[in-house]
Amino acid sequence: MYIGVDYYPEHWPRERWETDARLMKEAGFNVVRLAEFAWIDMEPREGQFDFVWLDDAIKVLARYDLDVILGTPTAVMPAWVAQKYPQTLRTKADGTQIVWGGRKHNCYSNIDYRRLSQRITRAMAEHFAQTPNVVGWQIDNEFGGEECHCRSCLAEFQTWLREKYGTLETLNQAWGNHFWGLKFTDWSQITIPDNATDRPWVMGNPSACLDWKRFITWQQARFQADQVKIIRAVCPGDFVTHNFMGLFPNLDYYAMAQGLDFVAWDNYPIWSDKPDIPYSASLAADLMRGLKRKNFMIMEQTAGPCGWEAFGRNPWPGEIRKIAYQQLAHGSDGQIWFRWRTCTVGREQYWHGLLGHDGKPLRRYQEAAQTTKEFRRLEPYLRGTTVVADVAILYDYDNLWSLEFQPGFTGNSLQAAVRRYYDALFRAGVNADIVNRNADLSKYKLVLAPDLSILPDETAGKLDAYVKNDGTLLVDCRTGIKDERNLCHARTLPGLLSPALGICIEEYSPLPADSPCQVTATDHLSGTYTAIQYTDWLTPESAAPQASYTGQWHLKPYAAVTRNTYGKGKGWYVGTVFKEPAFYDNLLAQLLKDADIRPVVTPPPGVEVSLRQAPNRRLLFLLNHTDEPKTVRVPEGKTELLTNQKTGDSVTLDRFGVAVLEL
Amino acid sequence: MYIGVDYYPEHWPRERWETDARLMKEAGFNVVRLAEFAWIDMEPREGQFDFVWLDDAIKVLARYDLDVILGTPTAVMPAWVAQKYPQTLRTKADGTQIVWGGRKHNCYSNIDYRRLSQRITRAMAEHFAQTPNVVGWQIDNEFGGEECHCRSCLAEFQTWLREKYGTLETLNQAWGNHFWGLKFTDWSQITIPDNATDRPWVMGNPSACLDWKRFITWQQARFQADQVKIIRAVCPGDFVTHNFMGLFPNLDYYAMAQGLDFVAWDNYPIWSDKPDIPYSASLAADLMRGLKRKNFMIMEQTAGPCGWEAFGRNPWPGEIRKIAYQQLAHGSDGQIWFRWRTCTVGREQYWHGLLGHDGKPLRRYQEAAQTTKEFRRLEPYLRGTTVVADVAILYDYDNLWSLEFQPGFTGNSLQAAVRRYYDALFRAGVNADIVNRNADLSKYKLVLAPDLSILPDETAGKLDAYVKNDGTLLVDCRTGIKDERNLCHARTLPGLLSPALGICIEEYSPLPADSPCQVTATDHLSGTYTAIQYTDWLTPESAAPQASYTGQWHLKPYAAVTRNTYGKGKGWYVGTVFKEPAFYDNLLAQLLKDADIRPVVTPPPGVEVSLRQAPNRRLLFLLNHTDEPKTVRVPEGKTELLTNQKTGDSVTLDRFGVAVLEL
Amino acid sequence: MYIGVDYYPEHWPRERWETDARLMKEAGFNVVRLAEFAWIDMEPREGQFDFVWLDDAIKVLARYDLDVILGTPTAVMPAWVAQKYPQTLRTKADGTQIVWGGRKHNCYSNIDYRRLSQRITRAMAEHFAQTPNVVGWQIDNEFGGEECHCRSCLAEFQTWLREKYGTLETLNQAWGNHFWGLKFTDWSQITIPDNATDRPWVMGNPSACLDWKRFITWQQARFQADQVKIIRAVCPGDFVTHNFMGLFPNLDYYAMAQGLDFVAWDNYPIWSDKPDIPYSASLAADLMRGLKRKNFMIMEQTAGPCGWEAFGRNPWPGEIRKIAYQQLAHGSDGQIWFRWRTCTVGREQYWHGLLGHDGKPLRRYQEAAQTTKEFRRLEPYLRGTTVVADVAILYDYDNLWSLEFQPGFTGNSLQAAVRRYYDALFRAGVNADIVNRNADLSKYKLVLAPDLSILPDETAGKLDAYVKNDGTLLVDCRTGIKDERNLCHARTLPGLLSPALGICIEEYSPLPADSPCQVTATDHLSGTYTAIQYTDWLTPESAAPQASYTGQWHLKPYAAVTRNTYGKGKGWYVGTVFKEPAFYDNLLAQLLKDADIRPVVTPPPGVEVSLRQAPNRRLLFLLNHTDEPKTVRVPEGKTELLTNQKTGDSVTLDRFGVAVLEL
Repeated sequence: MYIGVDYYPEHWPRERWETDARLMKEAGFNVVRLAEFAWIDMEPREGQFDFVWLDDAIKVLARYDLDVILGTPTAVMPAWVAQKYPQTLRTKADGTQIVWGGRKHNCYSNIDYRRLSQRITRAMAEHFAQTPNVVGWQIDNEFGGEECHCRSCLAEFQTWLREKYGTLETLNQAWGNHFWGLKFTDWSQITIPDNATDRPWVMGNPSACLDWKRFITWQQARFQADQVKIIRAVCPGDFVTHNFMGLFPNLDYYAMAQGLDFVAWDNYPIWSDKPDIPYSASLAADLMRGLKRKNFMIMEQTAGPCGWEAFGRNPWPGEIRKIAYQQLAHGSDGQIWFRWRTCTVGREQYWHGLLGHDGKPLRRYQEAAQTTKEFRRLEPYLRGTTVVADVAILYDYDNLWSLEFQPGFTGNSLQAAVRRYYDALFRAGVNADIVNRNADLSKYKLVLAPDLSILPDETAGKLDAYVKNDGTLLVDCRTGIKDERNLCHARTLPGLLSPALGICIEEYSPLPADSPCQVTATDHLSGTYTAIQYTDWLTPESAAPQASYTGQWHLKPYAAVTRNTYGKGKGWYVGTVFKEPAFYDNLLAQLLKDADIRPVVTPPPGVEVSLRQAPNRRLLFLLNHTDEPKTVRVPEGKTELLTNQKTGDSVTLDRFGVAVLEL
Repeated sequence: MYIGVDYYPEHWPRERWETDARLMKEAGFNVVRLAEFAWIDMEPREGQFDFVWLDDAIKVLARYDLDVILGTPTAVMPAWVAQKYPQTLRTKADGTQIVWGGRKHNCYSNIDYRRLSQRITRAMAEHFAQTPNVVGWQIDNEFGGEECHCRSCLAEFQTWLREKYGTLETLNQAWGNHFWGLKFTDWSQITIPDNATDRPWVMGNPSACLDWKRFITWQQARFQADQVKIIRAVCPGDFVTHNFMGLFPNLDYYAMAQGLDFVAWDNYPIWSDKPDIPYSASLAADLMRGLKRKNFMIMEQTAGPCGWEAFGRNPWPGEIRKIAYQQLAHGSDGQIWFRWRTCTVGREQYWHGLLGHDGKPLRRYQEAAQTTKEFRRLEPYLRGTTVVADVAILYDYDNLWSLEFQPGFTGNSLQAAVRRYYDALFRAGVNADIVNRNADLSKYKLVLAPDLSILPDETAGKLDAYVKNDGTLLVDCRTGIKDERNLCHARTLPGLLSPALGICIEEYSPLPADSPCQVTATDHLSGTYTAIQYTDWLTPESAAPQASYTGQWHLKPYAAVTRNTYGKGKGWYVGTVFKEPAFYDNLLAQLLKDADIRPVVTPPPGVEVSLRQAPNRRLLFLLNHTDEPKTVRVPEGKTELLTNQKTGDSVTLDRFGVAVLEL
Repeated sequence: MYIGVDYYPEHWPRERWETDARLMKEAGFNVVRLAEFAWIDMEPREGQFDFVWLDDAIKVLARYDLDVILGTPTAVMPAWVAQKYPQTLRTKADGTQIVWGGRKHNCYSNIDYRRLSQRITRAMAEHFAQTPNVVGWQIDNEFGGEECHCRSCLAEFQTWLREKYGTLETLNQAWGNHFWGLKFTDWSQITIPDNATDRPWVMGNPSACLDWKRFITWQQARFQADQVKIIRAVCPGDFVTHNFMGLFPNLDYYAMAQGLDFVAWDNYPIWSDKPDIPYSASLAADLMRGLKRKNFMIMEQTAGPCGWEAFGRNPWPGEIRKIAYQQLAHGSDGQIWFRWRTCTVGREQYWHGLLGHDGKPLRRYQEAAQTTKEFRRLEPYLRGTTVVADVAILYDYDNLWSLEFQPGFTGNSLQAAVRRYYDALFRAGVNADIVNRNADLSKYKLVLAPDLSILPDETAGKLDAYVKNDGTLLVDCRTGIKDERNLCHARTLPGLLSPALGICIEEYSPLPADSPCQVTATDHLSGTYTAIQYTDWLTPESAAPQASYTGQWHLKPYAAVTRNTYGKGKGWYVGTVFKEPAFYDNLLAQLLKDADIRPVVTPPPGVEVSLRQAPNRRLLFLLNHTDEPKTVRVPEGKTELLTNQKTGDSVTLDRFGVAVLEL
């Protein structure tokens, strides 16, 4: 297993390199990532390459058995690029260009930038192809969805649309350009939709906006592919990856992950102020694993307080270890802390590494070293294991973006909707895969598809078949409003899902913030809850109502939750948003029952459970996210691998403690 | 009476047109508005006109006895206009141009845009002059005060100023350009004041800003007049109107309404979250009626949930009807719901019509149809009636804008000030006209002129004469600070109104948010109230104090409210803002007494009263804005026209219920 | 002593001038400031000067014994400058230029603007050199740190850097350009750092940002020096000053004050809503005195409600006087109210003067006249006195800016940190000097250096020596993180201050808003407090802990406050921010004890104490900032100069009352 740090030899005097390498070795590390911002050091003048310093650094590292992942340095153009090729600098929505000086300056359509990026990639690949301890590559750094509005990008967008739609008539139909008289009569009339007016998302055509987002992904995926192709040709034995950003929403990560060997990502959990359950880091991990349905690597792992202006809190003793274990439990097969030593200069002076500014191997270094030692011990057990989930959550960038442009009701977003269900799964100790609508769903016992407003007929057909063939499906409010063009279906909701769900929705309404509505559930869901934000005015047909509105006279005719038997399966519908997490816990219990899923362990609040398995082995991870001891009931007589002891009927986890049971 | 819908045949397959027309007919509709965004369909290429599709649609509608109002389509330029004439696109304050793609893109000074707009207008007028069921025209759509900052607009502004002021010296005086050394020595030095610096309204010269706002109205009124002239010449029998936006503040609607046959407007009430009293829709209706002191038409009436990103709540059962009755009660003589069927494409996918995306005639359609039937029954009674008010409220765009630039105290705006008094009138069941300072006031028994900071000497003289001749006048804090140039009077306040009000104000002060001050009123206003936001340090001379400050030592010498007898009338002054609506209710009771106005009916909270009358007929409308039944005491023995029953001493209104009494 | 008003004869008819001058004279005034916005009136066309009107005004004033301070009018360029030399207009960060029309339009590098500014200055100086009652000059008006981003400014910045750093290698080192690959290979590649990307301070290089701020000060200081040089040459007998803006943070005021005869400033206290202690006006006064360690003048003193859009509250009776006394007590030797009469035109219509729009000498005028009479009576006692403080507070613009770019923890700023200690001094009745790191500290008994994150080695050495030689030093969290290049020291904190403080800090962490931590102090600081915002994980070495964390398990090993004996002095460290002002009061009591400082008087809450002294005289000022009477214990038998009575053991101050004791 690769465990190590992100390292910048170019930041430190050569005399220090040996010390750094020795300390890394002593911590048990075996890999470093290098050079992803060092273009100016590798090509100080156009076409003049200098790899001597990097060769020297890699040699020092090699002496301490440290392998190297090289980053292609195209995330920051050298000053000479900006100066000689000013059109490489991104153009903002208002038509002004950004000024060189931070990072991620470039336009992705600029022909010079593409050429220079490929040249430095090729030069690196050719130079390091024979360096034995160079084992893999990271393309660029954190593709971030930057949108350039220059003439070249506009022209490329027009070409992309022409290839997609063939005729202007098809485009005008797909974008609904008969509305407001916005029909194009020539391809060259097309503008970039997000800056169509002073208030972009408000006035922009939603169908055009969606294509623009898809185009941005296409453009950056092409930029990545240019480099992947070179590295595969020159260094066929090396792996190629990119460092994604978890739940970052601006690029279609499923598309970006194609063509890479595996996904790597940068994990900076959004902590609540107190030590708390970081659902989002688990969800992100499951999404990262879902991109290629394959284990992933952590390319940048939290090593200390982070921030550019103000910085966040310092991980408390035990938290660095716990954060690493959480990713391991969800499918991480590599762990690289960002960064080795806190930089004394530049914008990231306060994005702290394992070592502080003073370079001393103190508390955070020691904790990482201990974690590394434990991971080494677990390594033989982990080999070949991954998370195998019975539950899938549909997570679609088309839908995510469509809801950004038009949430429909205040507070609505795909991530918020997914979190309602994901968090309940987390609390129940059940793993899930996060997949998009192209995934094969037949292998899952339960499919959760919240906020599925974009529902192409093909997907509807797939879901219909899924239920019919013994699947349990949950969808919720505003499902199936739109097609893949971001146009509304001219159908009564829920459209093609009506048979599977057994319901009909003729009207719907947001619930204003001061008008929540009481809901009373039947005994399965047992209790009284509060509907907020939105209501479908939902009429059961073949479905059985599970909860009804009891709070506002005009909603009383409608069901809030329904359950339908369809073929061999069940189709659930939740027509509102519930304020109480308890509703989702109770609902999930019913769904798991319908789907015949039984969690191995039911954790107490604050404890996370995740299961990695291979055909012949199952490892159960228990993580205490609180700073108080927690006791978990577990199967008896199993081996806890960190202590190498047999379990009784429970395991007690220390504050931020971890246990790994071989089941 | 015209009742109908806004309809877009170009959005739907031809096969559907017949169904739509039939359903409209069945609902009792007799009019549709068409084509106001269809420029690209009527002139797909420059100079090539195509009205065949529209002829066909109008023919289908004619078969179902539906008349047509045509919109001139100049609110959205076709893509080919933007492409061939890029200078038609508006320039923002920062000097960058907007990008084509939403709506309302155009600069109003651009000579090509004016020419092309007149040409399409003339082409439509000539084509449809002989179409029998085309009965009227809407110019453009929702003029919105867009401000273009291009060189052409700047030059036009300079010319406009030269014509207004004659000499630079006069302009420099009128703008107070001796301040900060801002004198012009050449007309061409004049800049657009709203973008004079990084923070426009903060640094801009208030006098220059006011002229710029007047210029914007002038520019758009000219654009409108260009089209009106053509239609009057070509289609002399047709009416011409425009769809205003109620309380929208950016254009002087009194000026815009000149030259139209009547005012039409688009009513999307700003609902509070719960069903509540929509004062603002009544106030807007009274303003719309005040623009020409004449009944108006609703060109777009709320038909369902509305919104571009998130949308608002769905009208509850009964609310669509109630909203329509509210406008009828305030002087609407026509009712057009926006829109017929919810559009499946474009930015307004969620601005719902009577029909949903599925095109089925469901609940909202039925409610509109019922309302239409009732209106038809009332039609003979309504003929010739309008609202005849004893109360006038002064509402002046000069003043509104001046207070936008410089509210004086935090939270101050003309609309907020008017609402304090208007809402009390609403609760008292008293109708009001909303008029500007040019109106003849002699016909009113009571004139309310809150926040009248711009007070030209001529207006002051008119108000003085009004009081002297038996009028009752109410003004409040900061009255008379400024003249029509937005320059301060060099006078002790309240300046020329001192005799009528019998007071003197040497100093004044905002009240900071955490420093409200107790006020104690004498027995007429009975009680203790809370002064907030602002205080005039008000010394009664001939006036009698009605309330005094009892909360802060330094305010104790001053009166809070005064009443003066002057000639045959009364001059009231309110020197602060009161937190309690009850103060305004009590004050209004006194004002009505002074003005000898007696409401026909005193409604319970949540019920609105409005009276339409003709010389020989009086119709009393009662509207229940709540979702609970309400009982109203009424004159006995009158006919309730909807039930055709005689009244006892009270009428009970169902939730959202309506009654119409012939008095 | 100069006492008077800011006056604009060009705003008023000539007939009024005589009345104004007479009223000024009657109030006891002897000076007016004139002409600082009158460029257009003095040079109505390029090169054509007209001083006749100003001569006439000055003659009228002279007849009433009023001296004149002339402002050079370069803060607002005439319209003809903007028209003929458009490049004089400032360029914003987005590359667009501002539009002429407010004030402070100019770019400071523009060669034409510099030439025209020098020419009008020379013309004024030459014209008025022989006018006997012209006694001094104010350069420009309120230099405000406007940042121009034009090519000329960029080129000047590049040249400035080349002169500062000599070689690109040195610059690249100083800016840490090895980070993110941002090294320059040519001087012309350098960009302006504050607009480096869409989010300036977030992405900008902190070292580059700091140099840019220093450059902005350099540029404006040069602009000021251009004019100072001319006036000194032409009018050698006149004084030259500038009107600073107190705590305004965007320019290094220490640098700007060099070359002036004395500092003048504009005092508009930021009032809390209720009459309250205006610490900030005292702090600003002490800073203004600290700039040249010399008494100052008030060039614009609050005369009434102020504001451009909304305005603030009117000073209550007694407050105008109290505000003036506060400045007198802190070292003001001149008092000029802004402005004489409230302007009826332009953006400052609501920035009220002593007279209102009506021009009558009412309450505010009377209060100023009374104050003037009292000041005249005190004048002989005041002569030669100034504030002589035993306490110095370090206040450094480098540090202030560095913390703006990177506060480190949320809520952190130099001014907030200084206020924690300054306010405690205020409450204790102890005067302080506000000095920068170049000051000689040896004369102070106590040095407070909060938030001293930029700590060059030279300053560290000075502080070390200061403590060793019997000084008492207080520093607090994040001290010594950085060097003068805004690069982090590669040292364990507190770096070179470790010996003086006797502590070691290996880690640190912000405290999130919902995670305050209890601190328990030993008996010296007596009590339990709440640590918020931030904690150093502080280990005492030779220092004695004074308070420890008792609230969170992971902080228990660390001290919160330490005190170290080092040489003959004491080094205190506060490793967190305390919520309770009481902590700082208790801490200050200990610090004063260590430093052997005994306040003359300990005031009750709401009363301010300040001491002015000459070698042979001590004047104790007591100011009641509340609107309730306050009794203060004072030394017996002293003369109160306003009443000319001997004190008993206490003095009672009326609301907003003042007493001046000769000790």
